[in-house]
Amino acid sequence: MDPVELARQCAQRMYADDAASQCLGITISDVGPGTATATMVVRPDMVNGHGICHGGYVFTLADTAFAFACNTYGERTVAAGADIAFLEPVPAGETLTAAAVERWRRGRSGIYDVTIRSDDGTIVAEFRGRSRTVGKSAAG
Amino acid sequence: MDPVELARQCAQRMYADDAASQCLGITISDVGPGTATATMVVRPDMVNGHGICHGGYVFTLADTAFAFACNTYGERTVAAGADIAFLEPVPAGETLTAAAVERWRRGRSGIYDVTIRSDDGTIVAEFRGRSRTVGKSAAG
Amino acid sequence: MDPVELARQCAQRMYADDAASQCLGITISDVGPGTATATMVVRPDMVNGHGICHGGYVFTLADTAFAFACNTYGERTVAAGADIAFLEPVPAGETLTAAAVERWRRGRSGIYDVTIRSDDGTIVAEFRGRSRTVGKSAAG
Amino acid sequence: MDPVELARQCAQRMYADDAASQCLGITISDVGPGTATATMVVRPDMVNGHGICHGGYVFTLADTAFAFACNTYGERTVAAGADIAFLEPVPAGETLTAAAVERWRRGRSGIYDVTIRSDDGTIVAEFRGRSRTVGKSAAG
Repeated sequence: MDPVELARQCAQRMYADDAASQCLGITISDVGPGTATATMVVRPDMVNGHGICHGGYVFTLADTAFAFACNTYGERTVAAGADIAFLEPVPAGETLTAAAVERWRRGRSGIYDVTIRSDDGTIVAEFRGRSRTVGKSAAG
Repeated sequence: MDPVELARQCAQRMYADDAASQCLGITISDVGPGTATATMVVRPDMVNGHGICHGGYVFTLADTAFAFACNTYGERTVAAGADIAFLEPVPAGETLTAAAVERWRRGRSGIYDVTIRSDDGTIVAEFRGRSRTVGKSAAG
Repeated sequence: MDPVELARQCAQRMYADDAASQCLGITISDVGPGTATATMVVRPDMVNGHGICHGGYVFTLADTAFAFACNTYGERTVAAGADIAFLEPVPAGETLTAAAVERWRRGRSGIYDVTIRSDDGTIVAEFRGRSRTVGKSAAG
Repeated sequence: MDPVELARQCAQRMYADDAASQCLGITISDVGPGTATATMVVRPDMVNGHGICHGGYVFTLADTAFAFACNTYGERTVAAGADIAFLEPVPAGETLTAAAVERWRRGRSGIYDVTIRSDDGTIVAEFRGRSRTVGKSAAG
């Protein structure tokens, strides 16, 4: 199968089963081999005790983009770990976009960089995820 | 004010304003100077396309424990960044507990370690957060 | 074999082959299952353009303690990655001590925390290493 | 002053004082605003107990490229922390090249990505550094 077509099918099947991403209102776009973009509006219930978006939701959006990006090869791949730097506070109502790009992949391991931006293009967080392939996926 | 009493007051005020933690069903306990524990049940809407708890929610629970632990001194402190290692998959229905402990603090910077465990005590993730104090808090 | 005795034998054999640690003047002590301490004097040739110990040498000392700690089970284990926070500048002449403790281990993976202190006990860096076991060691 | 010229002057002055980089045989090239490349031959005394280049030296090379890249603006900038993923073992004799690129910078903070390659272009490690500006430099 064509790698781009395979990547899209992987994303579609994964999204259909992904209650978490659906419930958060996350949409997935720009899927290709090793890449995916996730978009989410920061809802009032995502705001923490400092009046800004809980860092957990910023991470979750980035982690979602990462998960879709590393699952574009027809193999079931999970997150082994990740590091995030929170660079700007994000108020409620903002639309966040997380663009994941594969940095390195070999055998069963991979590294993916995700940049998270707000409405006006400001970078609000930088994320780096470490992936581990564990088997064949439904689309593989 | 007594440090333990100050820590508790900080946590109470912070939780009252924290829509994110409340909506996720997170409860906070064991608050003291530099420490806090956060507990959450993994709901069906927190499950991802692999049928396990979305890593973003595991991170969010750890990040919440970290946020409460580093805000126990009457100063407004935010997360500058964090690293998480995902060690075990977590199914829906599980009750996760994230215990945050201060590892180091000096001036405006701090490092906090958070261990996340499932019902039976199995460690499912290890998190290390980097904090930055930005001013006085309401309870300070 | 007794786990403590096995740990010591692993460390002795590893140190004998370790030109890097020997040339840096690193000594190893307090070896036990999952733990090891590495000590090093900061030489004038370890100072960087800011007049303080190059962070690379602080990392190298921590990484050495980590390597000895995770190789105490008779299995060849390598560093998959690590994060370090540099907390205090270190001048030449200082004796640094890096104490590695196993935080978590299961199957072929492990997490080790290393605290690096200067002469007077001040914490100058915090390190967390991720290990991966790749086979049997000479002492295994 | 022209930003490229300023970057070069910063690197020259910093290298002149940098005993650590000089003693390791590290050379610096491709310096520009936010970028620098460091090159080093893996000497026999850099080999560890597993017969491969001690991860500390791979980190040190990356950390050096990072330090030069983040000190190209005439302001004294130090490493606050870094994460490294070790991807391939490196034998003695190899020439390693670490290319540092600025990923994000605002106010006194920055994030730099460093890719470390061996002779044949294979990526052997990926490094991400967190910088903190602390004052004016000699070249500033």
